[in-house]
Amino acid sequence: MSSEKPKKDQLANSVGIVSPQTMHFSEPLTLANGRILESYDIVYETYGTLNKAKDNGVLICHALSGHHHAAGLHSEDDKRPGWWDHYIGPGKPIDTNRFFVVCLNNLGGCHGSTGPASINPKTNEVWGSDFPMLRVRDWVESQKRLGDALEISQWAAVVGGSLGGMQAMRWSIEYPDKLRNCVVIASAMKLTAQNIAFNETARQAITADPAFNQGDYLVQDTLPKQGLSVARMIGHITYLSDDGMGQKFGRELRSGSFEQGIDEPLEFEIESYLRYQGSAFSKSFDANTYILMTRALDYFDLAREYGDDAVAAFKHATCDFFVVSFTSDWRFSPQRSHEIVNALTHAKKSVTYTEIESSFGHDAFLIPIQRYQRAFSAYMQRITISEEGDH
Amino acid sequence: MSSEKPKKDQLANSVGIVSPQTMHFSEPLTLANGRILESYDIVYETYGTLNKAKDNGVLICHALSGHHHAAGLHSEDDKRPGWWDHYIGPGKPIDTNRFFVVCLNNLGGCHGSTGPASINPKTNEVWGSDFPMLRVRDWVESQKRLGDALEISQWAAVVGGSLGGMQAMRWSIEYPDKLRNCVVIASAMKLTAQNIAFNETARQAITADPAFNQGDYLVQDTLPKQGLSVARMIGHITYLSDDGMGQKFGRELRSGSFEQGIDEPLEFEIESYLRYQGSAFSKSFDANTYILMTRALDYFDLAREYGDDAVAAFKHATCDFFVVSFTSDWRFSPQRSHEIVNALTHAKKSVTYTEIESSFGHDAFLIPIQRYQRAFSAYMQRITISEEGDH
Repeated sequence: MSSEKPKKDQLANSVGIVSPQTMHFSEPLTLANGRILESYDIVYETYGTLNKAKDNGVLICHALSGHHHAAGLHSEDDKRPGWWDHYIGPGKPIDTNRFFVVCLNNLGGCHGSTGPASINPKTNEVWGSDFPMLRVRDWVESQKRLGDALEISQWAAVVGGSLGGMQAMRWSIEYPDKLRNCVVIASAMKLTAQNIAFNETARQAITADPAFNQGDYLVQDTLPKQGLSVARMIGHITYLSDDGMGQKFGRELRSGSFEQGIDEPLEFEIESYLRYQGSAFSKSFDANTYILMTRALDYFDLAREYGDDAVAAFKHATCDFFVVSFTSDWRFSPQRSHEIVNALTHAKKSVTYTEIESSFGHDAFLIPIQRYQRAFSAYMQRITISEEGDH
Repeated sequence: MSSEKPKKDQLANSVGIVSPQTMHFSEPLTLANGRILESYDIVYETYGTLNKAKDNGVLICHALSGHHHAAGLHSEDDKRPGWWDHYIGPGKPIDTNRFFVVCLNNLGGCHGSTGPASINPKTNEVWGSDFPMLRVRDWVESQKRLGDALEISQWAAVVGGSLGGMQAMRWSIEYPDKLRNCVVIASAMKLTAQNIAFNETARQAITADPAFNQGDYLVQDTLPKQGLSVARMIGHITYLSDDGMGQKFGRELRSGSFEQGIDEPLEFEIESYLRYQGSAFSKSFDANTYILMTRALDYFDLAREYGDDAVAAFKHATCDFFVVSFTSDWRFSPQRSHEIVNALTHAKKSVTYTEIESSFGHDAFLIPIQRYQRAFSAYMQRITISEEGDH
């Protein structure tokens, strides 16, 4: 396991300054639960150039708390690049010299796309608790429409980590002729009971906060920050590994002393770190979106409508697959990826699998790790796209 | 892994009907943090008979949410025996035909011993937030006094699981001549950063509940049930294993349907189970005690004052050790027990170690598992006690 420091000049191998765009969809979208979104907005960013054959598009599907800003900076002063800047850019695994990269904020999100904090055009009030629950297939459907609107003839790859990997797998089955490669990183075909248990506990923390007001906190002008903060702390523990936390924080004290006879509050570094993470998140993320996203995770079950037979499910796919897992990821352990690879193999699909040694837990998929970057680059470089002037 | 059903007649191999007793201590207790408890009560139960040599006592140290009622029933109608009834009784591993068993509710608890919900005699008000934080060594000290009051000359064994195992280990170092055997089950010499992280998240859930009132909820006539419930849910997930939860609950639905086009709330069995556990606990346990117990867990570090050298720490012990771990316990994994065994071995202590195959996670130490019962019985049977009439 090794990690690279950010390069001196952040713009040197970056997609540079980028701007989000908004696309309005006025064709009603019938959701998996039968409800209908009459119209909605999708916020997205693109990096690189679509070729004439329109076959070099790469769709990035985000995870639970992700969004459309995956690479580059929003201004010269921007201190923080997009969330996957280590993996998207010129010469990077998702090479913007070759690919036209599209990343959107999913429906139900809280970064500009229509979600629970948006205005319901029918009532002219905030959706709040009335926003429909979504499933992964609803996101795939809305992503399909975005791809059509951008005139992508066929995605060179649909790529996602964690919840994003679930979207990529669903794409491979629902729209087999619309993608040539499916990249599934640190993901699973369905959650375990333990995964669901953590998600439900996080939701309980949110809904137990009196400021949640049954989901209508925006109308009530309250924010369930305390509950959302605890929810994020729970999540955060599951993103890191026991070993990784131990290496980073150990049992170091931030304040106080273990010395006998001293009566002052003791605080471990890990406590202070987690509380900071929880608090920061609770100020920037929508609680209803958090509930919606974790429910979509819980409900996802790739093979459910194929008689619980993942092989039968994947038989519908025609693309090639790249599956990645990380040794210390206990949220979606390597075993979950093995299940994906086994099902794909039995379905006679082409699959490349790599298991990366890392102590970063589930978060590893976001972090620069040399072996991961190399394996990812090697796979992406093998993807053929039409040369400019071919058509 | 195998489990036994409770026998037909619950009283047949039980210690029978038992009654808690209360002992008042009026000698002030100086705590590790320098504060002084002027007087306090300890609630305890005993099973079996103290022999003439007073060397057949076995002290049971309880874990986070445990108490003094470890075996037997409180009345003929009592539906639920003590929490370790599978392991304490005639013919059971802690055989009450041979041993005089003492189990207490620790100081700071909420089952009768002096704790945050008790009246502070100095103010005649509930202690609440003013109750001192305790460390494992404070419990050992108060247990030592209880043993003296009961005229135990030397414990045949001090026994504990989880947090109880920490107390047993501390006993072996602090009062080496007061015990002949130390039984440490599913425990650790110190928590990992991840352990602390879970505890802190649970505490945050409690303190974020407005009904917590900075710990003075009893005076304010409120109860932080919602927060305590979430805290218990977090804890509960860490007591079970991923596999065990999967086997017990899988992805079974309690209500709702995954069928497309149906818009009704979906609920997994595991969600309903966890919420029930959380809710039940929040009605019977004191929130300040929960905070106090988890902090004692966090602060415990057996070797801290021995230059972080566990071998140096255990060199003070003179008793024999029995260490038990469970394969699927990820809260205190077998690795933590290996660390204990390695330190004991290097300190040239006699140690028997057994690692029990089980899918019950950390909770395994409370559950009847044949191999565990046999190994435990075998160890306890080898303990020599004075025969009646020897003196």
